[in-house]
Amino acid sequence: MTLPDLSLALSRLRAAAPLVHNITNQVVANVTANALLAIGASPAMVLAEEEVGEFAPKAAALVVNLGTLTAPQRASMHVATAAAAAAGVPWILDPVAAGAMAFRLETARSLLGRRPSVVRGNASEILALAGEAAGGKGVDSAHRPEAAREAARFLARQSGAVVAVTGATDYVTDGAAMLAIANGHPMLTRVTGTGCTATALIGAFLGAGLDGMAAATAGLAVLGVVAEEAARKATAPGSFQVALLDGLYTLVDADLARQARVSAA
Amino acid sequence: MTLPDLSLALSRLRAAAPLVHNITNQVVANVTANALLAIGASPAMVLAEEEVGEFAPKAAALVVNLGTLTAPQRASMHVATAAAAAAGVPWILDPVAAGAMAFRLETARSLLGRRPSVVRGNASEILALAGEAAGGKGVDSAHRPEAAREAARFLARQSGAVVAVTGATDYVTDGAAMLAIANGHPMLTRVTGTGCTATALIGAFLGAGLDGMAAATAGLAVLGVVAEEAARKATAPGSFQVALLDGLYTLVDADLARQARVSAA
Amino acid sequence: MTLPDLSLALSRLRAAAPLVHNITNQVVANVTANALLAIGASPAMVLAEEEVGEFAPKAAALVVNLGTLTAPQRASMHVATAAAAAAGVPWILDPVAAGAMAFRLETARSLLGRRPSVVRGNASEILALAGEAAGGKGVDSAHRPEAAREAARFLARQSGAVVAVTGATDYVTDGAAMLAIANGHPMLTRVTGTGCTATALIGAFLGAGLDGMAAATAGLAVLGVVAEEAARKATAPGSFQVALLDGLYTLVDADLARQARVSAA
Repeated sequence: MTLPDLSLALSRLRAAAPLVHNITNQVVANVTANALLAIGASPAMVLAEEEVGEFAPKAAALVVNLGTLTAPQRASMHVATAAAAAAGVPWILDPVAAGAMAFRLETARSLLGRRPSVVRGNASEILALAGEAAGGKGVDSAHRPEAAREAARFLARQSGAVVAVTGATDYVTDGAAMLAIANGHPMLTRVTGTGCTATALIGAFLGAGLDGMAAATAGLAVLGVVAEEAARKATAPGSFQVALLDGLYTLVDADLARQARVSAA
Repeated sequence: MTLPDLSLALSRLRAAAPLVHNITNQVVANVTANALLAIGASPAMVLAEEEVGEFAPKAAALVVNLGTLTAPQRASMHVATAAAAAAGVPWILDPVAAGAMAFRLETARSLLGRRPSVVRGNASEILALAGEAAGGKGVDSAHRPEAAREAARFLARQSGAVVAVTGATDYVTDGAAMLAIANGHPMLTRVTGTGCTATALIGAFLGAGLDGMAAATAGLAVLGVVAEEAARKATAPGSFQVALLDGLYTLVDADLARQARVSAA
Repeated sequence: MTLPDLSLALSRLRAAAPLVHNITNQVVANVTANALLAIGASPAMVLAEEEVGEFAPKAAALVVNLGTLTAPQRASMHVATAAAAAAGVPWILDPVAAGAMAFRLETARSLLGRRPSVVRGNASEILALAGEAAGGKGVDSAHRPEAAREAARFLARQSGAVVAVTGATDYVTDGAAMLAIANGHPMLTRVTGTGCTATALIGAFLGAGLDGMAAATAGLAVLGVVAEEAARKATAPGSFQVALLDGLYTLVDADLARQARVSAA
């Protein structure tokens, strides 16, 4: 497979400044909004069932994250994804901890029917969605991403979405091709919401007009490259988090191109 | 018009340490609480309909922010503002994205009937509240603040509230006089919740006993001055956010007086 | 009383990496998750009534915090604490502002019947739970912790929980013995959620297998020691907050042992 051309991905995102509608969890709402602002998107967190059907079609992309799922939020997610699908707005699903609880596994599966452009999860989440008993320790994965590569491919074929499995190495597949992104840093696991940030960044690239494979690759490469740079400046999670946000703002296409390690897998 | 005397505004706030009740959005709840603590107020986020009627009258001021409005939260806002109004507790309305969705425009309009002391919004929000088709890109303004000056004056006369329109330059009006605050920095638009922080700071000054014009002017001048200083220390949003919070804590009256650019407009 | 042996508390926690289930408030959810990750635990915020009964038994400990209590959240807390108690999962109650509002005082009292391992609050909260008219200024205490020592002892005997009253000096009692932890720094009162962080850290030590007295002492000593170090590096709340999170990650047993000031009281 030809690798996606990311050479102008950041410039394109910043020129578009896409409005990204997020229905996300309470833990990371602030972090997600700041990451999207830092990279150059325009985030909006609109949650109410009364509003999401009106709002999602105005957005350039929709991000749906199950992190602190409740029944009212599930209802909003159904309305929003239906409205996005009807309006041709691309959207991304983050099935947080879908392997650990029946309520969110069911929710994630029913949302898959709304044809997300991308699904991003850790190995346990992707295994669970693909129908394999997966477990997972709360929101953390009990599996290495390599263990979920074939499940990701299966899930991509079944759902029509690009599927990204993230971990020490990230994998992105459309059901046929498989790419590996070998950027990142272990400190990402010591700050909450970095997986959710990856999802939101992919959403921003979808909103800038990239297709699913390119958006997923760009979002994951950006976060990985920025994390490596942040870890050179900061060796503990408080200052790492600050450096990560700074890095999303200062990263430019040339640095991304030089530092991203994307390959066919 | 004589400009409000802000020479002792910060000392007065810190001596009062006003209890500020916030019914605000999930994205900025943490940031708002920290900004209020840093400036010297005592924040409390009390949300439930079962509690807000008991709590709002104990507060020195109430902040109502529509950022992630839901139906239960709307019910709480009606109870809280009625209780605040009955008890003579000043309150401020932040009609986040009122121009973009009908549910929150209706909510904002009905809350206006509870006689807020101050309404603070961006140009799109103020235009929408004043009855002009305004739009707005999600939570961001599609208009410069100058475009909403007359709408602000109209809204102030109609509602009895002081109205603040914020942007590169901020404007504050009681329906007759109009003040301009020419502080701030573009980096404020790259961190989420800075508009909400402005609203909360105005709430803190209301809680310290300043009238609507003085509180709005003080709150906006403080944020603008602190942002200018933070931008001298930090050139990316992660570290800017840290410097902003530090600056709210270290700012003193003499620095505010020297750096604030307030004028009749 | 023999003081609890904390000499290996941090190593033990980091080896266990306990899964800590949090039902907490919107203001501090992010901060709590980051503090737990920094210290070496694995946090999960699972809130829905549909999920908490399934999830709490899988956790090593449960943290219940009333900070932004709503009726649906109260229902979840009842389900989760029943499930935790049935499964033998230790849990900790943080009765935020229980002295200020009837709804949360009632909720806190009914949750006390589920046999928490630890209750942590400020003096006003503990006085209120013990049945004394306490007040409290919103979420802040109107009393010094010394004023609540006997109330804490009474509450511990009545509920069977270890009770921690925090303030300039912290006190921990099982109804008989009383320990004082004389670490900490006033800057902790200028950052939101530091009390909630203390509660979460105690939860993490419970999840690592420490008993109530040892877990409460360890959690409070860790936060106090880290705060002292952070205050040496940072003199304003934005940078203090960053240093606090960094310090939770870098603290090791030897430093804790040397700097903790724990004594019989």
